[in-house]
Amino acid sequence: MAYRVKIIAVGRIKQRFYKEAINEYLKRLKPFCKVLVNEVEEVGDPLKEGDNIFRAIRGDCSFIALDEKGRLLSSLDFSKELESIFLHGREPVFVLGGVKGLSEEVKRKAIDVWSLSRLTFTHELARLILVEQIYRAFKVMRGEPYHY
Amino acid sequence: MAYRVKIIAVGRIKQRFYKEAINEYLKRLKPFCKVLVNEVEEVGDPLKEGDNIFRAIRGDCSFIALDEKGRLLSSLDFSKELESIFLHGREPVFVLGGVKGLSEEVKRKAIDVWSLSRLTFTHELARLILVEQIYRAFKVMRGEPYHY
Repeated sequence: MAYRVKIIAVGRIKQRFYKEAINEYLKRLKPFCKVLVNEVEEVGDPLKEGDNIFRAIRGDCSFIALDEKGRLLSSLDFSKELESIFLHGREPVFVLGGVKGLSEEVKRKAIDVWSLSRLTFTHELARLILVEQIYRAFKVMRGEPYHY
Repeated sequence: MAYRVKIIAVGRIKQRFYKEAINEYLKRLKPFCKVLVNEVEEVGDPLKEGDNIFRAIRGDCSFIALDEKGRLLSSLDFSKELESIFLHGREPVFVLGGVKGLSEEVKRKAIDVWSLSRLTFTHELARLILVEQIYRAFKVMRGEPYHY
């Protein structure tokens, strides 16, 4: 089992219940894939945060930016897209912005911009939704039931 | 302060971190409005759950059903819609389905069907997102900052 998923996120998870919730999904994901979470410092300026994001991305030039105005996917689409990335021998890299979102440059350099919802979420809730959807995606790929 | 929001939800919140997260937003909402949460039993059959939902709704004939295929709103739209309901002297009533979603009858009888996302969520995560958005809506209505 060599699947890996990378999440580059601006800002830390501060609220205890969000930490526990996110860790629960990361734990459930362990049999399926290794999830690397790389937190970059939140400075409140998407431009400066962008520089740190690019440093964290390094060689992974094909990353997916998450932005509320991006492409809306169903959970099934999300799963199929992940599967397709794995089938091409690549690793999905997700980039999640901070309080003020991602810079235009980050969105422009992403291979795709996906939206979790048209609603605005705190970055903590967005990270929880992302890990829950990655877990759901693996359950779908493996044809396992998941009581959604 | 007489604002009230009602949530009729199929199923209980079992995971502790979801309970804590939802309670945190309900607590933050206290200065703004009274949120009544009415949980109806999850039986795994949307038709039967629908009967219980209609019993719980009683006189509140103008409820909003939540369904992933419904109308996608931004957080600003969400806030404006809530404000408009209050301006008309009414109380927003949200209906959230269980594992298998809501019956066609519930969706047909709703005054509107809203979608939190095209993604599928567990009913626990959906409830968390709903209360977070209600909290966000009040912050927007009052012109207060909210570090999203």
